[in-house]
Amino acid sequence: MNLTTIPADDRGLHYGDGLFETIRCAFGQAPLLDWHMQRLGLGCERLGLPLPDVKRLREEIRDACADLPHAIVKLVLTAGSGPRGYARPPVLTPRTLLQVQPLRFDAAADLKLRWCDLKLARQPALAGLKHLNRLEQVLARREWNTDEFDEGLMLDSENRVICATAANVFIRMADQWLTPPVEGCGVAGIGRRWMLERGAQVRELSVADVGRAEQCVLTNAVRGPRAAISLGSRRYLPDEEVRSLRSAWEQCFATGASGQGPDPQVSP
Amino acid sequence: MNLTTIPADDRGLHYGDGLFETIRCAFGQAPLLDWHMQRLGLGCERLGLPLPDVKRLREEIRDACADLPHAIVKLVLTAGSGPRGYARPPVLTPRTLLQVQPLRFDAAADLKLRWCDLKLARQPALAGLKHLNRLEQVLARREWNTDEFDEGLMLDSENRVICATAANVFIRMADQWLTPPVEGCGVAGIGRRWMLERGAQVRELSVADVGRAEQCVLTNAVRGPRAAISLGSRRYLPDEEVRSLRSAWEQCFATGASGQGPDPQVSP
Repeated sequence: MNLTTIPADDRGLHYGDGLFETIRCAFGQAPLLDWHMQRLGLGCERLGLPLPDVKRLREEIRDACADLPHAIVKLVLTAGSGPRGYARPPVLTPRTLLQVQPLRFDAAADLKLRWCDLKLARQPALAGLKHLNRLEQVLARREWNTDEFDEGLMLDSENRVICATAANVFIRMADQWLTPPVEGCGVAGIGRRWMLERGAQVRELSVADVGRAEQCVLTNAVRGPRAAISLGSRRYLPDEEVRSLRSAWEQCFATGASGQGPDPQVSP
Repeated sequence: MNLTTIPADDRGLHYGDGLFETIRCAFGQAPLLDWHMQRLGLGCERLGLPLPDVKRLREEIRDACADLPHAIVKLVLTAGSGPRGYARPPVLTPRTLLQVQPLRFDAAADLKLRWCDLKLARQPALAGLKHLNRLEQVLARREWNTDEFDEGLMLDSENRVICATAANVFIRMADQWLTPPVEGCGVAGIGRRWMLERGAQVRELSVADVGRAEQCVLTNAVRGPRAAISLGSRRYLPDEEVRSLRSAWEQCFATGASGQGPDPQVSP
C-alpha cells in the first residue's frame, strides 16, 4: 500500500522489526522482482515473520510504477502493530508500505571512494538480510558530507572488507571478479547476485586486496555496477570490461518486458 | 506528542534512526526523569542528532501521565522525515512520539530465567544506547513462548554475560553486586544506574560467575530490581537484601514528588 502514514505502534518503528527491498522498475515492470521476492521471503523466514502474499505484492509493485518509465519502488514490510515489548503478539499482521519515486540518471557513473571508520559488527543472525536495523550504515554515511566522496567502504570488526554503505563491493584480480561473503555482516544484494550469476566469486577480501585489485566496482539494485575511479589516493582506470558490465545491467531495464531475472535460465 | 500515526517517510521506521526511553511515572511525576533525559541527550550526541528541547519534553511527559496514578511513558525520538537513503538531510527535524499506558503490577516479582542462544554482536558505536535497532532483542525474545521462563540472559559473541532481553543483570558475589560493562553491547539502563549509585560495581561476568553467584537480579526502568529464582536448573533463594532493594525501588514511586533521581545528592 502506498501509505503516507503508519500507525505509531508499528514494530518497524519501535524495533526495526521488518525488512525492505529497493526495486528498480522500468516501463511498468520490475525485471529483477523474482530475486527481490526470494530475498524478502528468506528474510521473513529468518526473522520469523509470516510470508507475504507475493502475488498481491507483485501486482501492487507493478501498479505503483505503472505511470513512470523509470522508477524506484521501496517496499517496507514490518511485523505490524503490537503492544510495548520485544515479544511479538501471538497473531502477527505484517504491514507493507510502498514508496515510489522516479529514477534519476544524474548519479555519477564513476565513484570516488573512501574507507569508513565505523566497523560493522558481525551478527550471523541478521547477516545478508535487508532488515530495518540500519544505524551502522547511517553512522558510516555521516562520516563525510562533501562531494569529495561518493561512497564509503566498510570493514568488519576484524578488518575484513564487507561492502559500501549502500552497495556491495567487487574487485577484479587476475581477471576474476571477487566479492566478500555476507554470512557475518553485510547484505546479500540484488546487484551482487547479478554479478555472481555472471561468474563472480565469493572470497574474503582484505584492505590490501582492494589496493592491489585491477578494478573495483560497487553495485546495488538501483544503480547496478559502477566503477570506482579512486579510493583515497589509489586510482583505478575503468576499462572496457567494466563499461560492458554497466551496459549489460542497463540493458535489463531497457524494456522491462521480462518480469523475470535478466538471465532466466540461470535463476533458481 | 501523543501521535497515533507517524509519516511513512520517518527515518525511525526506515533505518531505526532514533532513540527511545521507557519512563515510569507516578502521580503525575517521573522520579527518574533526569536520568532518562541525560541518557537521551548522550544518545543524541553519539548518533549526531540535535538535542531535544528537554524542558518541553519534560512538560509533555508530565502532561501525558497526569491522569494515571502509575504509568509508563514511552518516548521515541527519531531523526524525523527524510528522502530515501542513509544520508541524513542537511537540516534535520527530529520527531518525538509519546505513548502512555497504565502500569500494571501483575508481573511476577521473582523471575525464571534461561540462556538465550542468540549472541549479541559487539558494536561500540551503538553500545550503551537505547536506540531503535532492536532486532537482536526481538529474535532473542522469540526463543521461548511459554510461561516456563520470564526472561532470557544474553551473551556476546565472546560468551561474556551482557544483559537480559529487556533488563540489565546483576549478580551478588561475596556481598558485592556486580554488572557487566556496556561498552561493547547492551544498554546503560536506568535501573542499572540506580544499582550503581547504591554501590554496585561494573565487572566482566562469565556464565560460570552467574552460576556461582549468591543472588541474581534483573532490573529495568519500569520494574526495578527483580530477583531471579531460577536459571535453567540453578535455583536462587532471594534473601532479605534482595527484598529490601525492591522495596527501596518502589519507594521512589510511592509519591512521585521529587522529580529528581531517588538520591539527588549522588546524581551528577
